[in-house]
Amino acid sequence: MHAVTIVDGSLVWAEREDPRPGRGELLVKVRATGVNGADLLQRRGLYPPPPGVVADVPGLELAGEVVALGDGVRRFEPGDRVMSIVAGGGQAELVVVPETSALRVPDAISDAEAGGFPEVFSTAHDALVTQAALVAGERVLVTGAAGGVGTAAVQLAHALGATVVASVRSPEARPAVVDLGADVVVDPADAANAGPYDVCLELVGAPSLVAALPAMTTGGRVVVIGVGAGARLDLDLLTVMGKRLRIGGSTLRARSLEDKAAVAAGVTRDVLPLVASGAVRVPVWATMPMAEAQEAYDRFAGGGKVGKLVLLAD
Amino acid sequence: MHAVTIVDGSLVWAEREDPRPGRGELLVKVRATGVNGADLLQRRGLYPPPPGVVADVPGLELAGEVVALGDGVRRFEPGDRVMSIVAGGGQAELVVVPETSALRVPDAISDAEAGGFPEVFSTAHDALVTQAALVAGERVLVTGAAGGVGTAAVQLAHALGATVVASVRSPEARPAVVDLGADVVVDPADAANAGPYDVCLELVGAPSLVAALPAMTTGGRVVVIGVGAGARLDLDLLTVMGKRLRIGGSTLRARSLEDKAAVAAGVTRDVLPLVASGAVRVPVWATMPMAEAQEAYDRFAGGGKVGKLVLLAD
Repeated sequence: MHAVTIVDGSLVWAEREDPRPGRGELLVKVRATGVNGADLLQRRGLYPPPPGVVADVPGLELAGEVVALGDGVRRFEPGDRVMSIVAGGGQAELVVVPETSALRVPDAISDAEAGGFPEVFSTAHDALVTQAALVAGERVLVTGAAGGVGTAAVQLAHALGATVVASVRSPEARPAVVDLGADVVVDPADAANAGPYDVCLELVGAPSLVAALPAMTTGGRVVVIGVGAGARLDLDLLTVMGKRLRIGGSTLRARSLEDKAAVAAGVTRDVLPLVASGAVRVPVWATMPMAEAQEAYDRFAGGGKVGKLVLLAD
Repeated sequence: MHAVTIVDGSLVWAEREDPRPGRGELLVKVRATGVNGADLLQRRGLYPPPPGVVADVPGLELAGEVVALGDGVRRFEPGDRVMSIVAGGGQAELVVVPETSALRVPDAISDAEAGGFPEVFSTAHDALVTQAALVAGERVLVTGAAGGVGTAAVQLAHALGATVVASVRSPEARPAVVDLGADVVVDPADAANAGPYDVCLELVGAPSLVAALPAMTTGGRVVVIGVGAGARLDLDLLTVMGKRLRIGGSTLRARSLEDKAAVAAGVTRDVLPLVASGAVRVPVWATMPMAEAQEAYDRFAGGGKVGKLVLLAD
């Protein structure tokens, strides 16, 4: 098989040994695999995968067809369409996936959509539902709402019955975010004025969070998922105490198989029905061939996108 | 009646109008009332009570005897021994308390102990159980463990089956904290080396928390209750994300009556049985007459104490 391979900070389309599924694992022929911000960091050598995961093939999600089964697999058969998060190595023609992480692809969505679904919707669901315990009627701020996790979070929060305020830097991107279900779309400079917020999903970083904190309600929950604009937060603990805030953060990548199985179960329960009904969709901004990953990453880094950039197999 | 009254940053023992119990309230003849750090701030004009609460009489907790009932009180009778947190005004001869906040005083403890119980044990229970969800077998760091909340938290965490590491600045105070159930007592400078910690109860402030954060486990929970040593925290959000930390904080004072009723219910369920059996005790460091509150606060501010300073009625 071939795989996107990091060589001296660049990506090449290289011949690799075929992987073989172990016990409880699926071998998946990849049809589509989304690009995420973490992949760009990994290309630069800044975000190595956890121990035991192939280090020079990026890719945190994929969709495709089951082509072989390891021993003990119970829920899937060859020919099934599946999608999954992985800790790395997803941008390859063949990928091995634990069956507990695999999600069935709803008939309603294309391969490209499925390839861009797992990472952002798993992240958004884990952050909003599992960590922030968002409930209907609450008001949530999603910063950086035009990106991959942002577009997933806006739709999911809207479907859960929350009032969604989306902050989006690019004026051109704002109408698309309204179409996804945001009740209010604001410039980041105005985010604090559109509160108060029960929940803040922080996808931009410390400067954005500093502006949002004064707009949090008593008992408000903050979940930090992205820090591209800066990771050092000057936090006033008296504000945290006075408002009984909870500030948390998360990454999916380094979690245990058990934790990832729990994430997949939550997505299966809460999100896949919304995808099947069309209430939630995967906004695919662009597709490019997997063999052109180097150019695709550069395009991703250029910004201006709404939703996902997905690499396709031939 | 008389009450401790703040006049120009000092405390005087002044004549005040007797309070009258409203619907669902108890009139309590106070026998003992603990001093807390927040009282000292209030004396300096720095920590005003929430709206609707008497502003010039400090005191966040009290114990005494029910002497009259408002309409609709169901659970108490005149003559009952009760103790309670209040949002202010507790350092007086008569205090009105909502019956939903009132706790029955176990026979096993004295008036002085009861007067020093509510604030610190309610705070410790809310922080460790409700907010941090501490469970048996976990390792917890309690900073500033020789103080009022600290001595309550060490005992409660020990009784819950946690391994307790207590950081205590004063070498003289450390043996007493071991006696309360701490498994390890360390100098604050060594706290990070005695981890890793599933839970950190931060009672000192930002400098202490900065030292503890690297010692938190993945999925660790931090609850900030005291910031006397500094409230500005330089927080690395990448650490929060990578370890999936939750950083929260709390005060009891400004909560709704419903929230305070829930706190009282939790203490009744989890802590009062431990007090009744003697598994948990209220370390009373000193008692002084309520009329000498000015001198008592100065003594409290001087430090070196283990446990509570409690003011007694005549």
